[in-house]
Amino acid sequence: MNNTIALSQTTRITDTINQLATFTEPERPHTRLVFSSEFEQARLWLRETFVAAGLSCHVDAGGNLVGVLKARTDEPCPDKVLLGSHIDTVPAGGRFDGIAGVAAALEVVHYLNTNEIKLPFDLEIVDYLGEELNVWGTSCLGSRHMAGLITSEMLERVDPDGRKLGTEIARIGGSGGTSEEPRSDASQIIACLELHIEQAKSLEKQNLDVGIVTSIPGIYRYSISITGQAGHSGTTTMTERRDALVAAADIIQGVSAIANQIAGADNQHFAATIGKIDVFPNGAAIVPGQVEATLDLRAASDHSRLNFFAEFENLCTQASKSRNCEINIKQLAAAAAAPMNDELMKLLATAAVKTGVSSTKISGGAGHDTAHLSRFAPAGMIFIPCRDGLSHCPEEFTTSEAIAKGSLVLIGCVLELARRTSLTRA
Amino acid sequence: MNNTIALSQTTRITDTINQLATFTEPERPHTRLVFSSEFEQARLWLRETFVAAGLSCHVDAGGNLVGVLKARTDEPCPDKVLLGSHIDTVPAGGRFDGIAGVAAALEVVHYLNTNEIKLPFDLEIVDYLGEELNVWGTSCLGSRHMAGLITSEMLERVDPDGRKLGTEIARIGGSGGTSEEPRSDASQIIACLELHIEQAKSLEKQNLDVGIVTSIPGIYRYSISITGQAGHSGTTTMTERRDALVAAADIIQGVSAIANQIAGADNQHFAATIGKIDVFPNGAAIVPGQVEATLDLRAASDHSRLNFFAEFENLCTQASKSRNCEINIKQLAAAAAAPMNDELMKLLATAAVKTGVSSTKISGGAGHDTAHLSRFAPAGMIFIPCRDGLSHCPEEFTTSEAIAKGSLVLIGCVLELARRTSLTRA
Repeated sequence: MNNTIALSQTTRITDTINQLATFTEPERPHTRLVFSSEFEQARLWLRETFVAAGLSCHVDAGGNLVGVLKARTDEPCPDKVLLGSHIDTVPAGGRFDGIAGVAAALEVVHYLNTNEIKLPFDLEIVDYLGEELNVWGTSCLGSRHMAGLITSEMLERVDPDGRKLGTEIARIGGSGGTSEEPRSDASQIIACLELHIEQAKSLEKQNLDVGIVTSIPGIYRYSISITGQAGHSGTTTMTERRDALVAAADIIQGVSAIANQIAGADNQHFAATIGKIDVFPNGAAIVPGQVEATLDLRAASDHSRLNFFAEFENLCTQASKSRNCEINIKQLAAAAAAPMNDELMKLLATAAVKTGVSSTKISGGAGHDTAHLSRFAPAGMIFIPCRDGLSHCPEEFTTSEAIAKGSLVLIGCVLELARRTSLTRA
Repeated sequence: MNNTIALSQTTRITDTINQLATFTEPERPHTRLVFSSEFEQARLWLRETFVAAGLSCHVDAGGNLVGVLKARTDEPCPDKVLLGSHIDTVPAGGRFDGIAGVAAALEVVHYLNTNEIKLPFDLEIVDYLGEELNVWGTSCLGSRHMAGLITSEMLERVDPDGRKLGTEIARIGGSGGTSEEPRSDASQIIACLELHIEQAKSLEKQNLDVGIVTSIPGIYRYSISITGQAGHSGTTTMTERRDALVAAADIIQGVSAIANQIAGADNQHFAATIGKIDVFPNGAAIVPGQVEATLDLRAASDHSRLNFFAEFENLCTQASKSRNCEINIKQLAAAAAAPMNDELMKLLATAAVKTGVSSTKISGGAGHDTAHLSRFAPAGMIFIPCRDGLSHCPEEFTTSEAIAKGSLVLIGCVLELARRTSLTRA
């Protein structure tokens, strides 16, 4: 393969990024929420771009936009390789989270087209529906649907404007129905590949082009509900207080201490965060009577997660006792850690070496569509550096060169998969 | 004096409480915010009640409703005794906070009228304007004005509906202007007396009728502004975090520990509270980048307050260092502790003994108009029990008997002041 990056290639990537960036709420760049009119317009543009690249397009039952580059033979049941990411954004997000992966997938198609390479499998370029957490409380709508993880409870949820999630998915071209099994052709899928910006500083610090993701951590969310007794800050004596915020402080401090200790001992990704806290009545002169907080837990290793949770439960028991408050913990969400496919990790690493792209193994921290895809098919993922590790904000940035280098690794991997598939059939 | 409580007296007190309770926002009992139409109607009713009790009424420059029972002699410059409290409420407050003190003051007048007692000083029955904290951020409007503590900055403040504080005070009958000196006749005032519900459980627990307040604590408010760095909860490693909420937890926990220790060692009132905290961006999956909190400090002793503050500053320095966050402390409000007048405390205690009302010395926790009055005149205050210590809520309750017993102590004190004044002049 030709492993130099042509100016035409970075220009095309820049065009894709810039074009998609135009589809945003004008007063709040870059905001392209799933199901918004900006999102619908971006999808129309992307569909045209897919078609122009020679892909035959459809929206699947999960609402994913899929552009297929058919396999060279007209076998009744060819293997399939999925390549994609997402084009929706968080509110006031960036121009690269997800979008970089779609641009890179298109680069693979352009390479194949330019070099007139026909593959022995169907290549599906996918814009997975609604990867970002939305007002209905479910992220990764499209990849979850492919994995058989969309329940009727999720679909029935209604946003503050009265929009039902199921209805919105149907409006965008999906079935709007539940999905209780992985897609029916799951056994034909030999690889799901995704390129994504790292959203952290590790690659940038090491001055490396690509990270070969070893695992997407499990994501667990818990609500912490603390009930004490509100009272007048002047007349409630220190000894008679049941201050829910002081109990919360015990827990916030403890979570940080336990997480630091576990993250230091673990060679895989581990992080615990209390990012959201609401205090009632939240008055300057009132002892807090109630606190609602959310614990966000990311763990590549189940061992670390279970260790953490045991210590966390002790912590809450202690805080409840010493602050005379009632503390209730409820699990809000759980997604198991998703180790990436070993063979694909090797192929991606080899492709990097062959194309002169520097790389390292890396453990991710964020959730991605590929975590869900890995439940039913071999999955691999690469990260590219992003400036200062910033993401989910307008300052989010990576270069077209960085995306191009990442796409070289994807191309190398797809070509090697093709070589092996052809060999098997030969 | 006649120290039995007549049925007619408790009936009259109950009537006063019930009548004032009718002036409330109907959907949100008991809400009679200063300057509201409910407040204006209540003032009209109270003025009529004052007049019916033989008082000559006016609204002073501070917006206080004053009913004067003239001294028996027509001296050009008679001594004055102030007796009163307030009739405004917090939103969804109670029927007794402030109101009990106005009802008790009226009972003193009724006693004097019934027994045809003429005093050697002017007795001013006062409904102090806007004691409760209002949308303009200044409590005790009327007593502050008397004390010379109303600045043009306060008067210029505008509420969300565009109402300027100075204009509102003028609308209610005050001057609407600043007050930079205590009232010009301050040297003639020999006592300011107030009865108030305790808003705590101490009297109820000890089964006592009256608390002789030794001091109204100083009230100090500080804003605590903590700046860290927001980040993705998945991709920001534990070691690189600058979590503003973890720093806040250090401070919340530390404030509680220091305050408990000082309150335990101090034989006067001491309490410190962080009751209000706002976290930014407050997302479940985002490391908190900014926290704004308010510290409320109540200290009867300056020694304890300064001890606390020194330890609090150390605490913030430690938290800033260990969490790599910037922490800024700003004083929002300061009202020095107001010790009550020793001689008046003795007179009140003696009056309690003489009327068969059980009493104890007590250190208050809340702010009161009397704190401001004590800056320019001898001031004394008594508390009566309230059920379960509840206040600033619709459950707030005390009995008409309790108010009547308190008024007996006020009557005894006023009569003794009259006896002494007459002796001095004789």
